[in-house]
Amino acid sequence: MGENQDKVSVVNALGIKAKQAAAAMAQMRTEDKNRILMRMAESLRTDIDEILAANALDVEAAVKKEQTAAFIDRLTLNPSRVEDMAIGLEALAALKDPIGEVLHGWKGAQDIGITKVRVPIGVIGMIYEARPNVTADAAGICFKTGNAVILRGSGDARESNILIVKALRRAIGEEGGPEDAVQLLEDTSREAAVELMKMNRYLDLLIPRGTAGLIQTVVQESTIPAIETGIGNCHVYVDATADLEMALKILINAKTQRIGVCNAAESLIVHQSVAEAFLPGAGKALQELGVELRACPDSIPYLPGALAATEEDFGAEYLDMILSIKIADSLELAVEHINTYGTKHTEAIITKDYDAANYFTQNVDAAVVLVNASTRFTDGGMFGFGAEIGISTQKLHARGPMGLEEMTTIKYIVHGEGQARD
Amino acid sequence: MGENQDKVSVVNALGIKAKQAAAAMAQMRTEDKNRILMRMAESLRTDIDEILAANALDVEAAVKKEQTAAFIDRLTLNPSRVEDMAIGLEALAALKDPIGEVLHGWKGAQDIGITKVRVPIGVIGMIYEARPNVTADAAGICFKTGNAVILRGSGDARESNILIVKALRRAIGEEGGPEDAVQLLEDTSREAAVELMKMNRYLDLLIPRGTAGLIQTVVQESTIPAIETGIGNCHVYVDATADLEMALKILINAKTQRIGVCNAAESLIVHQSVAEAFLPGAGKALQELGVELRACPDSIPYLPGALAATEEDFGAEYLDMILSIKIADSLELAVEHINTYGTKHTEAIITKDYDAANYFTQNVDAAVVLVNASTRFTDGGMFGFGAEIGISTQKLHARGPMGLEEMTTIKYIVHGEGQARD
Repeated sequence: MGENQDKVSVVNALGIKAKQAAAAMAQMRTEDKNRILMRMAESLRTDIDEILAANALDVEAAVKKEQTAAFIDRLTLNPSRVEDMAIGLEALAALKDPIGEVLHGWKGAQDIGITKVRVPIGVIGMIYEARPNVTADAAGICFKTGNAVILRGSGDARESNILIVKALRRAIGEEGGPEDAVQLLEDTSREAAVELMKMNRYLDLLIPRGTAGLIQTVVQESTIPAIETGIGNCHVYVDATADLEMALKILINAKTQRIGVCNAAESLIVHQSVAEAFLPGAGKALQELGVELRACPDSIPYLPGALAATEEDFGAEYLDMILSIKIADSLELAVEHINTYGTKHTEAIITKDYDAANYFTQNVDAAVVLVNASTRFTDGGMFGFGAEIGISTQKLHARGPMGLEEMTTIKYIVHGEGQARD
Repeated sequence: MGENQDKVSVVNALGIKAKQAAAAMAQMRTEDKNRILMRMAESLRTDIDEILAANALDVEAAVKKEQTAAFIDRLTLNPSRVEDMAIGLEALAALKDPIGEVLHGWKGAQDIGITKVRVPIGVIGMIYEARPNVTADAAGICFKTGNAVILRGSGDARESNILIVKALRRAIGEEGGPEDAVQLLEDTSREAAVELMKMNRYLDLLIPRGTAGLIQTVVQESTIPAIETGIGNCHVYVDATADLEMALKILINAKTQRIGVCNAAESLIVHQSVAEAFLPGAGKALQELGVELRACPDSIPYLPGALAATEEDFGAEYLDMILSIKIADSLELAVEHINTYGTKHTEAIITKDYDAANYFTQNVDAAVVLVNASTRFTDGGMFGFGAEIGISTQKLHARGPMGLEEMTTIKYIVHGEGQARD
């Protein structure tokens, strides 16, 4: 119990310091924030040897734990990846500061002057997977938007994260900023994470990134408003009038260009009228690329070598070279299937039909709905946001790719001349 | 357990029906929504006798339970108040429909065409106090914005709410709309409310309105994203350079114009340099209006008849003829006091000093910060929103008065011509 008590205190101390830093950050000038971001980039370059040495320890431990090659790839840093982190911070410095923007201004009742101004959110908690580059990215985005952040990375990236955060904090301190604007929760236990989720006294927003299990824990345990991110069971629907060559190109891109990401396609739906024309060739092409097919009873005759899909398959986010396949008797049934099994992330239709495109975009309930384009476009970079902290799959506050603006809130500032309400 | 099982099923059934209705609502034309809103108004007028009879039962029970006069006033309907509800629905019909608005549109990477479109949130759960007019207002606002709503009013207004919702649903049905867009949770037990809070499978948003206890229950229990509303420990700060006549006028308005509302002032802070000039007269004026004063040690000598304020007083939302009073040695300490004890709702400064006004508006952490105007202006009506479902005191999604736009989310619709990601 004494130990548990200690943990609470450590997490609480981070919260108190973050709240103080957030007050300072909210008043920091744009030019000062940008200068510090540039200094952070330099600091990472200066510390590159120590960061890579710490990362080598993380990677060694992951190899011992027999993590997958994909996992180890995401965890591994090298000089070029550290340089990318530095360049990312410099790019943030170059982006327009959203803070202080007047979104709207007008005269209210009795001539009170109302302005709706963009301000920082305050203290943000970020719980994320074993990707050390996210540490620098998330810290930079929160810093640029005048927020303080408490980073809780994966235990598998702990050594790397400690060194990265050390470099970032030193840069802030050297430029006279509040070091506690960027803090790392070094205790990577589940208990400490749950403590963080309950610290609504200090945290204004929690952003969980990672597995469905983490998101569920946050939904169940968190007392802090949270933005669910990144679970993507994305579908490509090939409509009756689709250009089948285009459909295959988009499907292959959506499924195989990068398999471990949330905007990769996990399921193919084909209108029954083109199943015979599309599925045999598409299935063969996918299998040649190494994709395992799991097909519904109607589609399996067209797909030699495919396994029978279970109910779980249609709800699965594989993040792997696997694709579930379903034949739909109509556009309406395809949309119904998507709204039943999808995760409200990204859904695509391939069609030449104007009405079908409209029906799909209007009736599919997802953050991003695409016509004749790959699901892989759901991305802050592709959208031109310049930076992205995650992709929201909920409907409150932010939906879809979250850039700088999504890391802000608003404040109404009212100027009067002595008005009392009539 | 069998009974508990039944309760789960009832609440669940509402959720399932609401989700179906939400899909229909999202596609409903503006003109159809407006026609149904007008019909709802007529329906209330038609049913006025039954509604008033049901309300009489609620009021009778409240009198027996010895509720306060203010409580009974809020609960009581009369012909003019029912007419106001009808007029409110007609006013909603006249407002611009926010749904379908394109907030932004641009070309993303590889020339994909991106539009950010305003869409309904989906299913909204609303838990609120014993004010039957809120039933019609909330149903109307949710309907206008294409959402389905599950209303869970107070048990004290149960009979009134049943009749009001019956009238509203009949209007929807008569016009061929989905009646289940407006549903009432008739079981007003705490267990049923907690069940509702955990129905994240069907509900997209929960809006609790009412006591701090309810808000706390939602923060602790809800698995649905929620918007906290309405707890207002609002301060009026009289700065060193304030026009003291203006300060008194605003203070009296903020404290006494309407005491039971969240934007009423609960605390006065006075700069030490004007304490002697301001407090004796202000205190006397407030006492003559029946306001009880609870003062800090520094201010109590200026306020004959005042009680000594406790720590709890400074954190209290009285909603009553009581005011806490604090002398601050500086503007900075006044802001610190507000950020410590305030509820992030509404804060006002009275000052002639440009720098003090800027410091206050920038450093006070609240949804609405006013200079030289009464806290009572924090209101959707005063802001010109035309309708208001509550006042958010959190930073996510909506902050301050919530009108129609705050009851919407966005969707990205992407139009391509076959783009696969490079």
